Amino acid sequence: MQGLSCPTMDVEAYLLDRGRLVDGGLAQVLPPEDTYPSTIHQAMRHSVFAGGKRLRPILVIASAEAVGASAEMVLPTACAVELIHTYSLIHDDLPSMDDSDTRRGRPTCHVVFGEAMAVLAGDALHALAFDLLTRNETAAGPERALRVTQEIARAIGTQGMVGGQVLDLLGEGVAEGIRRLPEPVPIEQLVHDIHRRKTAALICACVRAGGLLAGASREELDALTRYGQDLGLAFQIVDDILDVVGEEAVLGKRAGGDAVQAKLTFPAVFGMQGSSARAREATVRAIGALEVLGPRAELLAGIAGFLLERAR
Amino acid sequence: MQGLSCPTMDVEAYLLDRGRLVDGGLAQVLPPEDTYPSTIHQAMRHSVFAGGKRLRPILVIASAEAVGASAEMVLPTACAVELIHTYSLIHDDLPSMDDSDTRRGRPTCHVVFGEAMAVLAGDALHALAFDLLTRNETAAGPERALRVTQEIARAIGTQGMVGGQVLDLLGEGVAEGIRRLPEPVPIEQLVHDIHRRKTAALICACVRAGGLLAGASREELDALTRYGQDLGLAFQIVDDILDVVGEEAVLGKRAGGDAVQAKLTFPAVFGMQGSSARAREATVRAIGALEVLGPRAELLAGIAGFLLERAR
Repeated sequence: MQGLSCPTMDVEAYLLDRGRLVDGGLAQVLPPEDTYPSTIHQAMRHSVFAGGKRLRPILVIASAEAVGASAEMVLPTACAVELIHTYSLIHDDLPSMDDSDTRRGRPTCHVVFGEAMAVLAGDALHALAFDLLTRNETAAGPERALRVTQEIARAIGTQGMVGGQVLDLLGEGVAEGIRRLPEPVPIEQLVHDIHRRKTAALICACVRAGGLLAGASREELDALTRYGQDLGLAFQIVDDILDVVGEEAVLGKRAGGDAVQAKLTFPAVFGMQGSSARAREATVRAIGALEVLGPRAELLAGIAGFLLERAR
Repeated sequence: MQGLSCPTMDVEAYLLDRGRLVDGGLAQVLPPEDTYPSTIHQAMRHSVFAGGKRLRPILVIASAEAVGASAEMVLPTACAVELIHTYSLIHDDLPSMDDSDTRRGRPTCHVVFGEAMAVLAGDALHALAFDLLTRNETAAGPERALRVTQEIARAIGTQGMVGGQVLDLLGEGVAEGIRRLPEPVPIEQLVHDIHRRKTAALICACVRAGGLLAGASREELDALTRYGQDLGLAFQIVDDILDVVGEEAVLGKRAGGDAVQAKLTFPAVFGMQGSSARAREATVRAIGALEVLGPRAELLAGIAGFLLERAR
């Protein structure tokens, strides 16, 4: 894995430390469970503190640090993207969507709090995220805060995250009454498009947000953007691969949760070997894009290598 | 209705004209129906163009005009609050929430596009609204745009719109598994609290947004805030009354849609006469608050009087 690993830095220790910082921030910004009306605040905390890896907020922080800013300066934005990620998981898990009863071994929000409360918990996290995004003003100035807010909003709309979930549902054919994609799109292009929107758009926006708030130059921002795009792609391919591998380990058969629902995943379209090769290529491109940033970007490179290693 | 009406201004013509301006803005900011992936864009437009009165965006505009700014300057924010209002209606109508098959005589979003697509259409409108809120920068400057974005985000979170819907569901007892309010709250206080959060918070934020973007002084903003709070309360009481009256006219009995679901409405708690009196008192207070703004606020006063007239 020469050129992809990051031997001089302890990536795992970094992820752990910044993850703790994010957890502390989230504990502060989320209303306490006993705040009236308490049910919704319990539901929000149930899903936010459900063992997530905090990858997206850590990318905001790592990107800001690569351009010379502090983690604390971008913490509100880091927390905001994790709230957005959590809201999307709650809604994706709903009975009308992916119908998932558990996530990371814990019961999902609608299983514990009912479907109505899960819809509302997602909506409340969505709104709280934008409240947080406006709180960067003090540190980064209103222009930068406003630009980041806009980029995040676009990354999670129909050209981004929500659009990806739409294509995922249409491709899967479970959405009632709409069992076929209205537009004729080749399957290879479709699986790329789903991943780009559903995962890569927000991951790229996280990386750019850190850079933008930290005052990155145009050249630095271009580098971070290319890193973010390819990292987002690699991350979702690896996630697809792990889903297959994980299910094999548990069930002893070649059928992941996604396969059961006949989702359009990279392994389903390109096979396991083809998917691994594509994840590796995307990771190499992501790390290559960081060259202009010099040694300050070593941790970003390390994170990319670390995420790829998960699939080995 | 002396003192509440606005004889020198044609409020209805104003509402019609500004409503058309908002409709034009919405048609521009919403992705065309054939934009890929088209299903979600069709679902969004289905619900946004479903005969809404555009009250919230018109309040943004009227408030800005009362402080001397133009309607065009605040049009992105006006459109944004209508998208937020529409997203909340789509989610409120879901089978797991109020389970409404029709709204203003048209089939609701989930009836036409399926439940999954309705959840996502709401989510997409929510995100697009915040995209729009960041587009005020050009006209009003980034500080004001950021402040308005924050106030709107807070008005629709658990201390505002979503919190109101939570209390509505809990009070109604339809949310599965949570049939009783965990906190002991007197019913009179609860119905006020539901309305304040569910409707008045966003309406007040709309009025404030127009003032803030237009550069209102502190005194003007205080006046607009008191107007917005009481107008929001009056508006929801009148809506409750109309629900009862409308159902009586259609079904020939004293049972509105809300009563069927045993919702905590003003008529249910204070009776029809008590509710009318409260709506009228709130309207008088709203109009009284505008005094400091002088003749420029005549239209805001006229709108308040017009909304109260609906219940007569």
